[in-house]
Amino acid sequence: MFRKLLSLDEAKEKISRRFKPKPLGVEQIPLLDANRRVLAEQIVSPIDVPPFNRSTVDGYAVKAEDTFGADEANPARLRLRGAINVGELPNIKLEKGETAEIATGAPLPKGADAVVMMENTEKQGGTVLVYRSVVENENVMKAGADIKKDEVVFTPGKRLTWKDIGVIAALGVKTVKVYRKPRVAVISTGTEIVAPGNRLPPGKIYDINGYTLSASVAECGATPLNMGVVSDDYQQLSETLREALETTDAVITSGGVSVGPRDFIPRILESLGGHELVVHGIAIKPGKPTTVALINGKPVFALPGHPTSALLTFHLLVRPFLAKLSGISGVEKTFKTVKACVGVRMFPAKGRRTFVTVKLVREADGRNVAYPATTGESGAITTLAKADGFIEIPENQQFIDAGEEATVHLFEV
Amino acid sequence: MFRKLLSLDEAKEKISRRFKPKPLGVEQIPLLDANRRVLAEQIVSPIDVPPFNRSTVDGYAVKAEDTFGADEANPARLRLRGAINVGELPNIKLEKGETAEIATGAPLPKGADAVVMMENTEKQGGTVLVYRSVVENENVMKAGADIKKDEVVFTPGKRLTWKDIGVIAALGVKTVKVYRKPRVAVISTGTEIVAPGNRLPPGKIYDINGYTLSASVAECGATPLNMGVVSDDYQQLSETLREALETTDAVITSGGVSVGPRDFIPRILESLGGHELVVHGIAIKPGKPTTVALINGKPVFALPGHPTSALLTFHLLVRPFLAKLSGISGVEKTFKTVKACVGVRMFPAKGRRTFVTVKLVREADGRNVAYPATTGESGAITTLAKADGFIEIPENQQFIDAGEEATVHLFEV
Repeated sequence: MFRKLLSLDEAKEKISRRFKPKPLGVEQIPLLDANRRVLAEQIVSPIDVPPFNRSTVDGYAVKAEDTFGADEANPARLRLRGAINVGELPNIKLEKGETAEIATGAPLPKGADAVVMMENTEKQGGTVLVYRSVVENENVMKAGADIKKDEVVFTPGKRLTWKDIGVIAALGVKTVKVYRKPRVAVISTGTEIVAPGNRLPPGKIYDINGYTLSASVAECGATPLNMGVVSDDYQQLSETLREALETTDAVITSGGVSVGPRDFIPRILESLGGHELVVHGIAIKPGKPTTVALINGKPVFALPGHPTSALLTFHLLVRPFLAKLSGISGVEKTFKTVKACVGVRMFPAKGRRTFVTVKLVREADGRNVAYPATTGESGAITTLAKADGFIEIPENQQFIDAGEEATVHLFEV
Repeated sequence: MFRKLLSLDEAKEKISRRFKPKPLGVEQIPLLDANRRVLAEQIVSPIDVPPFNRSTVDGYAVKAEDTFGADEANPARLRLRGAINVGELPNIKLEKGETAEIATGAPLPKGADAVVMMENTEKQGGTVLVYRSVVENENVMKAGADIKKDEVVFTPGKRLTWKDIGVIAALGVKTVKVYRKPRVAVISTGTEIVAPGNRLPPGKIYDINGYTLSASVAECGATPLNMGVVSDDYQQLSETLREALETTDAVITSGGVSVGPRDFIPRILESLGGHELVVHGIAIKPGKPTTVALINGKPVFALPGHPTSALLTFHLLVRPFLAKLSGISGVEKTFKTVKACVGVRMFPAKGRRTFVTVKLVREADGRNVAYPATTGESGAITTLAKADGFIEIPENQQFIDAGEEATVHLFEV
């Protein structure tokens, strides 16, 4: 039974045509809890930031023109009207020839348009000598110079960083609307897979994918629900899938998709009501048997059981999908990339787009060099654990030669 | 009142001499929850990984010597003894001239020492023709080839990544001991500071530091407790500090440390029982007034109120401290760094080690260029929000010239 495999681009296109992942609703949360959450509203500044013309130094507020021509030999002499501290509304209005002491961050008094730094002045009783001229707005941050009232500061779809949190706080905003985090079920299957914590019968291995995929889901900003290992018992797997589809927004399985009598995930998916098999095999290496279905509108990503394959297909297909479901805009920029020299010649598999997991090494000369992190399909988890990302080799390329520069897509979110 | 300021190195040395931050106790948690937590135990593998000699391909298990000399013209003819699936303990023992079908990941049967790939064979009834010779261990991953039984896989102090979680799962380990997360109080002070969510009186500005520092504490893997804005009322601030010291493992304040009548954090710290003022001013720019005290053995980091200064001193002093308190080993490697060309000439402040917050820009020619993210002390939050990290200029250096390469310490944890 042969079928023409979809190319990766065709698979992606088909998935995005069939699923239109939309954010899952909005919740209002304290700004303090909004780090790494995805903004669901436009943030428009209700105020000027700073809210007033503020001094950026300790010194004397002046009318700039009163200082013109002042120098060490010919200081300007200004009458001291008082002092303005931070947090105070100045009740002074400077007239020509007058000055007021002012602290860093304090509002300029009326009539002042510049500040002379303390070190360029000398106080003599009620008079301040100014030894250096200043121009208008010197040492002053104007009201709204940073953010203007009614300025759009952030738009929906921005995943907030700790720095953005500071910007929103500066506007006086205390709560923000964010998109609900997607809940994602993670199910491991396979005759040979045993959940950690259990005795390991001969011939079996412990589940890795359930753990790496759950942690990766969390890194993407979604909430993983690890449903453990389901042996490839048709009935049990079918029930677990039903339960997962009822309680979560998307389901990831690993294992059970290769061609083989026990690899029956595609058959189970077909047996569930309201199914549509969107992708059944992709011309990529690794990850060829990857299967994607839509069950009553909810996606099931059935990834291969090999840890490297599961991880790569997660990053290629599931991660951008989760980003869209999380409401993140600009999903195409989901991957951080770095340029690196390739450490050894890398070949693509014939007719399949090939992904080589690589470890980045900084050489003594400062170059980033990417070395393959897994040798063939050996599935060594310790080498996979050293992988920083992957290099993509197009179907039609003969090889990437040692020393050539390539783009490394990082696993890091 | 002049005092000789400590250099940054002296300040760090004094802090690490006076505080010996130790991890705060151990808790046992599910491995599924251990992503980004700090390991508090040695992980020793209880098993070989893989636990058995496993086939890395679909094919036929053989005695390698039975295939020697085999080629397209002269295939080896082996008697088919049966098939071995993944997850099964083979009950076959191969004798000379025998073979068994084997799936990827399945255990080799006794007597077999190599696997011939399916595509190099042909099945004819009970006989398998092998068209290509294999050497011992070809297409086989030996038991323990990845991780050996009793091998030390991780040592205490490792901050676990999602990849490490996969490695530990592969050992069959389901729960791990991790260090308790430090709880860190964050208090903002200053006459001019108003908490977001409140009306902004004239002359005041909204709190930024409480938000950026809380989020930064969380990014470092600790638990922030934002105690809000305390106006610089001596009594209230003193009470809030006492409460913070009782309920958390470390306290960060911002504001109230410059020289000025209302900058009384140092005085309050001195008034609290069991105090020791460890650092009172550091010869750095920005961040000069930074004050560090020990109150009954607990540290208070009193950072300047200017957002750039607060952020920089957090990263210079608090972040490495929190890493130690979290039990992370190799704290000196806390910062991720990148090399970048400097975009404009950067000068240090006279006699002070200077830190320039920078934004990294990738130029068309692929170079990373670092541009200053804040101009002077303007305190524009939007420009600070664009900063990726900082460049350090030593006290004795005249400048870093435009085009020179420098190390950028990233804020990213």
